[in-house]
Amino acid sequence: MVGQSGGSTAVINQSLVGVIEAVDDCAAIGRLLGAHHGVRGIVQELFVNLKGFDRARLERVAATPCAALGSTRDKPNEEYCRRIFEVFRKNDVRYFFYIGGNDSADTARIVREMAKADSYDLRVFHIPKTIDNDLRVTDHCPGYGSAARFVALAVMGDDRDNASLTGLKIDVIMGRDAGWLTAASMLARSDESTGPHLIYVPEAIFDIGRFVDDVRAVYDRLGRCVIAVSEGIVCDEKMEVRKADGSVKLVDKPIAVKVAEEMHIDLERDDHGNVVLSKLPLGQFLADYIAERLGKNKPRIRADTFGYVQRSFPGCVSPVDAREARLVGRRAVQYALAGRTSGSVAIRRNEGARYGVSYFRAELADVAHQTKPLPKEYINAAANGINDSFLDYVAPLAGDLPPIGRLFD
Amino acid sequence: MVGQSGGSTAVINQSLVGVIEAVDDCAAIGRLLGAHHGVRGIVQELFVNLKGFDRARLERVAATPCAALGSTRDKPNEEYCRRIFEVFRKNDVRYFFYIGGNDSADTARIVREMAKADSYDLRVFHIPKTIDNDLRVTDHCPGYGSAARFVALAVMGDDRDNASLTGLKIDVIMGRDAGWLTAASMLARSDESTGPHLIYVPEAIFDIGRFVDDVRAVYDRLGRCVIAVSEGIVCDEKMEVRKADGSVKLVDKPIAVKVAEEMHIDLERDDHGNVVLSKLPLGQFLADYIAERLGKNKPRIRADTFGYVQRSFPGCVSPVDAREARLVGRRAVQYALAGRTSGSVAIRRNEGARYGVSYFRAELADVAHQTKPLPKEYINAAANGINDSFLDYVAPLAGDLPPIGRLFD
Repeated sequence: MVGQSGGSTAVINQSLVGVIEAVDDCAAIGRLLGAHHGVRGIVQELFVNLKGFDRARLERVAATPCAALGSTRDKPNEEYCRRIFEVFRKNDVRYFFYIGGNDSADTARIVREMAKADSYDLRVFHIPKTIDNDLRVTDHCPGYGSAARFVALAVMGDDRDNASLTGLKIDVIMGRDAGWLTAASMLARSDESTGPHLIYVPEAIFDIGRFVDDVRAVYDRLGRCVIAVSEGIVCDEKMEVRKADGSVKLVDKPIAVKVAEEMHIDLERDDHGNVVLSKLPLGQFLADYIAERLGKNKPRIRADTFGYVQRSFPGCVSPVDAREARLVGRRAVQYALAGRTSGSVAIRRNEGARYGVSYFRAELADVAHQTKPLPKEYINAAANGINDSFLDYVAPLAGDLPPIGRLFD
Repeated sequence: MVGQSGGSTAVINQSLVGVIEAVDDCAAIGRLLGAHHGVRGIVQELFVNLKGFDRARLERVAATPCAALGSTRDKPNEEYCRRIFEVFRKNDVRYFFYIGGNDSADTARIVREMAKADSYDLRVFHIPKTIDNDLRVTDHCPGYGSAARFVALAVMGDDRDNASLTGLKIDVIMGRDAGWLTAASMLARSDESTGPHLIYVPEAIFDIGRFVDDVRAVYDRLGRCVIAVSEGIVCDEKMEVRKADGSVKLVDKPIAVKVAEEMHIDLERDDHGNVVLSKLPLGQFLADYIAERLGKNKPRIRADTFGYVQRSFPGCVSPVDAREARLVGRRAVQYALAGRTSGSVAIRRNEGARYGVSYFRAELADVAHQTKPLPKEYINAAANGINDSFLDYVAPLAGDLPPIGRLFD
C-alpha cells in the first residue's frame, strides 16, 4: 500500500513514482495498492493497483506537482489507525509506504505498533515530504528545495519591481511554525542594496515597534524596502492551541492573530479549533501599521501573500529536489525489502564543499510528533535577517538561479 | 532619450535593450540618454548615457524583469509635458522613446504636439508594454505573454492542488479593467475535469447570486472547483472615477468595492482619488460569501491573490514574448531614423496556422487614452468562462506549457 498525505509539494509525485518503480523491480510483490486521498482512501477501501503501470505516463506524473493519488488532511487517532490496520489485514497488505510530514510519520508509527502487537508482519515506511522542511533527523525534506526555489525567484523579481517603482513591499511566505521557507528568500539577495532587506521568521519573537524602526532604517538608506515575513511570526504573548487528541497547549501568539483580535475580525478555525492562519491578512495589516507610523510622507506600501503557488507551481522545480524525492521513494521500498524493519527515509549531507547526499533509515518515533525549527544560529542578532551561513545550506537545494542584471551596481 | 513607465513586466528590459542596440547601430546618434524613473527623471534631469554600453551586461539586463532604468506612476499633465519638452530642447534631444502603456502613449503624443507647435524637430515613439494586454491597434502587447504564462502555470499547479485536497479555490488575477490576463488561465485546462472551472472577467457583469449557482453546479459535478477571477470584476451599479485631469466619469462598480462598502472597510485611494483595488480582499470576500451560502456541509474554501509575482517573476518568461519585446524596441528606433515620423510600434499577427508576426507604425493618438477590452466573442454565453477560440489567440504568446500527468484520465 502506498499513499500521499498533507499539503502539496512540487515533487511529491517523484516519491510516489520512486515507490512504484522500486516495487516493479521486485517480482515477489504482486500488487501495489495506491490509496486515494491517503488514509481516508485506505479506510474506505478506495485503492487502485499501480504495479506494472505505464512508464511514460509515470514520468509525466512524476513531473507534475501535487499528490496524483489525492491527499488528505486527516490525522488519524488510535481508532482510525485500528481501521487502517484492519483493512491491511483484510487485504493482506505487508508493506505500507506513506508519503507525508511528521503527522504521517506518526500514523505510520501507530499502525506499525498495532501490527507488532498482533504479530502481523507489516513493514511501514514513512517517506518525507514537506515544503516546510521541518522534519527531524533528515538534513532536509524533499519538496523544500522547489518551494525555496519558487520563493527565491518570486522575491528576486519582486525586489526588481520594488527597485523600479520604489516604496515598501511586504511578502508573506508560508511557514506556520518554521521559518525555513521564508529564510530561503535570502537567495534573492545579490548584494547590500538588493532585497529582501528584512526577513522575519517564527523562531524569533516579532516586536512590532522594532519592526517599524527596522523598516524606517532601510527606507532612509535606500529609498525602498522589501520585507519577507513568515505567515506564522509570533509576538511575546501566548494563546491556546487544541491538538487532535483534544489536549490543549500554550503557544506563542501569531502576529496575525493578535492583529485580528485588535481589529475585531472573526477568526475561522479548523476542525481542531485552531485559527486558520492562511485567511488572516497579515501582510495588509503590517502595511497599514507601517503606513500609520510613517505618516503623511509615507511611501507607496504594498503587501502580497504568496499562497499555494509556493507549493504547487509547475514551472520551476529544483532538479536536485526532484532527484532526491524520487530516490527517497525508491529507498523506502529497498529498505523494507532488505530487512524486517520499519522507519522513515532520511537524507544525510556529505562532508566537503561539493554537494552530495546519502540516505539512511531513521526510527519512526524520532520523526513523528516533534518538528525541527530553523536553528537560532541562522537568525541574525537583530532578529530581522538571516545569516550568510544559511546560504551554504539552502543554495544547493534550490538549484542555480538566474543572475540579476542591473545597468549599474 | 529613452525611458520606462508604469507597472513592471518580465520583458520590459528587452525593449530597453532593443532601443540601445538599434541606437548603437546608428553612428549619427552620439548619445542615448536613459531617464531614471521615466518622465520623473526627465524633468529632474536625472539621466545617464547608454550609448556603447557593455553588451554582455545588457544581455543580463534584458533577461531581468522590471524596469532597469526605474519606472514611474506619474501621468504628466500639459504643464508637466511642457517641462519635459523644455528639458529636451535644453539637451538637444531629437528622439524620444517611451516604453509603457496607453498613458505613456498619451504623454508621448502631447510632447510631440508641443514640439510640432514650436517647429522643433522631435520624433517620438511609444513602445508598447503591459501585462494587461489592453492597448489598441496592436494584436497583443509585449509583457502579456510572460504574465499569461505565469498565470497559466500557477492555475495549472493550483488545479492539481485542488484535485489533491478537493474543496473550492478562488484565484484573483491582475486586471483592473481588462480580462485578458484572467482569460489566459484557460491555458491551464486540459479537459472537462480540470480547472479553472469558472472564469470571471471585468468585461461581463458579475452577478453574485449566479456565481453561487455556478460554483454549486461545478462542485456537485466534480466535488471541487477552481475559480479564476479578475481583480476588477464589476457589478451592475456605478461609481465615480477621477481622472488625472480632474474630470470625473461614472464606471461600473468593482465587486471588491461593493463588498468593502458592505463590510465598512476604509478604502485606500491613489493620488487621483481612485480606490486602490489591489488592497481589497476580493478573494477572501468571495470565499466567505460562498461559505455562508453553502452552509454546514461546506467544503474547504481557500482564496489566493496572485499579486505582483504575475508581472515580475523571473523564472518563466515566454520566449516569444522576450523576442517580440526586443524587436518592438529596435523597430521604434528604426522607424524614427527612417523618416520624420512619430508613432507607436504595433504588432500584426500573420494569417495562417503557424504563428508569426510583423511590425508596423501606429498613430500615437490611436493608442493613447482608450484601452482594448477582451472582446465579447471570447466570453461564453453564461459569462462564467472563456471560449476555446481564445486559446488560438493566447497559446502562441505564452509558449509551450508542460504536460499535466495524471494516473488516470
